[in-house]
Amino acid sequence: MSNAFDFDGLFAKDLPLPAAPWNGFPKYNFTGGHSDPDGIPVEKLIESATRVLRRRGKTLATYNIDSGPLGDAELRGYLADKLDRYRGFTPPIDNILITSGSHQALLLLFQTLINPGDTVICEALSYGAAIGALRGCGANLVPVRLDENALCTDHLSEILMNLRQKEIAPKFIYCMPTVQNPTSTVMPLDRRRVLLDISRDFGVPIIEDECYADLLWDAKWPLSLRGMTGSDHVIHVGSVSKYLSPALRLGYAAAPWPVLSRMLALKADGGTSALAQMVAAEFLRDHYDDHVAALNIRLKRKRDVLIRALEEQFGATAEFDVPPGGIYLWVKLPNGVATTKLAALALEEGVAFNPGPQWSVDPDAATHYLRLCFAYPSEEAIREGITKLAEVCHREFDVPARGANVSR
Amino acid sequence: MSNAFDFDGLFAKDLPLPAAPWNGFPKYNFTGGHSDPDGIPVEKLIESATRVLRRRGKTLATYNIDSGPLGDAELRGYLADKLDRYRGFTPPIDNILITSGSHQALLLLFQTLINPGDTVICEALSYGAAIGALRGCGANLVPVRLDENALCTDHLSEILMNLRQKEIAPKFIYCMPTVQNPTSTVMPLDRRRVLLDISRDFGVPIIEDECYADLLWDAKWPLSLRGMTGSDHVIHVGSVSKYLSPALRLGYAAAPWPVLSRMLALKADGGTSALAQMVAAEFLRDHYDDHVAALNIRLKRKRDVLIRALEEQFGATAEFDVPPGGIYLWVKLPNGVATTKLAALALEEGVAFNPGPQWSVDPDAATHYLRLCFAYPSEEAIREGITKLAEVCHREFDVPARGANVSR
Repeated sequence: MSNAFDFDGLFAKDLPLPAAPWNGFPKYNFTGGHSDPDGIPVEKLIESATRVLRRRGKTLATYNIDSGPLGDAELRGYLADKLDRYRGFTPPIDNILITSGSHQALLLLFQTLINPGDTVICEALSYGAAIGALRGCGANLVPVRLDENALCTDHLSEILMNLRQKEIAPKFIYCMPTVQNPTSTVMPLDRRRVLLDISRDFGVPIIEDECYADLLWDAKWPLSLRGMTGSDHVIHVGSVSKYLSPALRLGYAAAPWPVLSRMLALKADGGTSALAQMVAAEFLRDHYDDHVAALNIRLKRKRDVLIRALEEQFGATAEFDVPPGGIYLWVKLPNGVATTKLAALALEEGVAFNPGPQWSVDPDAATHYLRLCFAYPSEEAIREGITKLAEVCHREFDVPARGANVSR
Repeated sequence: MSNAFDFDGLFAKDLPLPAAPWNGFPKYNFTGGHSDPDGIPVEKLIESATRVLRRRGKTLATYNIDSGPLGDAELRGYLADKLDRYRGFTPPIDNILITSGSHQALLLLFQTLINPGDTVICEALSYGAAIGALRGCGANLVPVRLDENALCTDHLSEILMNLRQKEIAPKFIYCMPTVQNPTSTVMPLDRRRVLLDISRDFGVPIIEDECYADLLWDAKWPLSLRGMTGSDHVIHVGSVSKYLSPALRLGYAAAPWPVLSRMLALKADGGTSALAQMVAAEFLRDHYDDHVAALNIRLKRKRDVLIRALEEQFGATAEFDVPPGGIYLWVKLPNGVATTKLAALALEEGVAFNPGPQWSVDPDAATHYLRLCFAYPSEEAIREGITKLAEVCHREFDVPARGANVSR
């Protein structure tokens, strides 16, 4: 429009950078937390939607349907039962808050607990958006080392002692003991016991994020932290995104009412979308076990395809631990390979992944790491995408060396 | 638990008051923006859900399904078409952002545009949560008078002149020209022309909130402000809540990309819930006209039941204009009747309504007003509820006088 009004001078100060236009998915998409399209139980979701709408459809006329601002009572009931059966604790349904993804649960918890300048302890590698949100609340992040058994409790002890000497009381510990993001590690039970005991001794609550915990195929499901004795300083967060659908935007926090009542006061969204809650509750009550078992078989196969492709294309230059669950492979490339630059170059060839620095409290410590989500791309796309990635990486960084394997 | 961890000392400063536990709906519920349970098109929603899940269900595996962060492309396409057919303008679908209710659209706009200390012009009576959100962003609110034709442009002119003399440039005008909340007034076309011209002359954008505009039965649908010539300083906001379901949490903003790209950067929710978007798009494309026509007949009848009940129970002591649409009746009681106190007393008898001060930029100017939503309660509940309200009001305030009408 020739005479278009100019809004540019009117924007608030200190806004984040404007979003870029969306141009569709890249052809080889290893980014984000997308799930497997062929894992969506379409016909069963139709059955569940039909049944629940017929039974409860009229309740869509009211904000928060028939259940109040904590969220659909049937979904909270389902989650309470599931936590009881599988995760070792039984929250009353009024101690569960349904949120728009576990991300909203985390945001509300962070806003509820953090004053600018507060110290928060967090895994050295962690969920990028959580790192950003914690910093957005003004938290000083103290990173704890991770090893193949997740968060290192020895290092945590040391940090807690040092902070005590400086008379700093950390606000909480944010961690993912069961299928960590991005490393996919699972903390063994004995280390969980230590984590609980030392955090409790120091009076520091824990926010336990189990958003990937359902996707575990090669390891026994350990009790959640909240499911163990002496864990009432643990706030438990979970999600429906990773084992059913991220687009439904359903997560939850299980916490005592004094915490939830303050989160609720900040949750100015008119309630989490009710149709997703109703359909998810109806579906999961009947089909959770079968659905997750089938999904895990699919995911494990895709993990194996990805590992084989990396071995073929990168040989020994790509290092990783084989994840016992989840949807991510955390890959270390040789020191000189700057994955942020690699990501930009690879995107031009249609290959998208998340560079490591975004998942690291200290971005400089992860310049040569990357995270690959293997849930979304087809097995063929995984193979082709990794071949292309190796080509781009070789071209720019001379890694992997040509002839590193026969097929190239 | 005897040994429960105490979170009380850990909360951030300056949190809002914690939420109160939810104890179910009151028996006679005239609060909020709930819709008519019997107006929910349950069987057609089932058909739509079945069809769209079968066609597009696999896309639920990805964040933002197949459409990117602006929201479901089919819903945006439907809305663009509807705005073209009924509201006089045709936004490209990339100038529409789907939000979790129009409330989220307003919050994002306010955050995008307001710096603390900015002046914002708003109707003297307005959406309570918008007044709160504007103040939360640090805006100084300048109220414009309303009359039976909505916002008074003479008063607006005067305000704009005064502000200019003080060298204050107001950030925007927030208004609801088509079925205003809470007064349900509709601004005639000639006044819309004046509003557009003077706001444009002063270089002040308008946020036009049409969240109730679909519910109009006794008046011709005037063009939206954005649908008139010389309106590219108008940002248009709408909702699916009031004519389909508030629990779906679907609203939208139509705005130029420079505005939307900044709203998107602040929209940290992982996307609006996709199932609601997909089902709504599928349903509305086929059934919008018939559905809204039928709903408006129901609502008009409930409005009439409410008016008759008020006339019978309150006689001349309850004053109101008959709304040509929407779901609210804005009622003036005699000066001495403090509706905030009345609301607390009535709630004990199971009657809930919104006291006027919450919908007034100057709460003291509306102490004896109340807002009644007539969409949710049944016709019987409307009659019984108003009878009870009159009893409580008489008992406490001697209004209405006993024997004000024969039936009491």
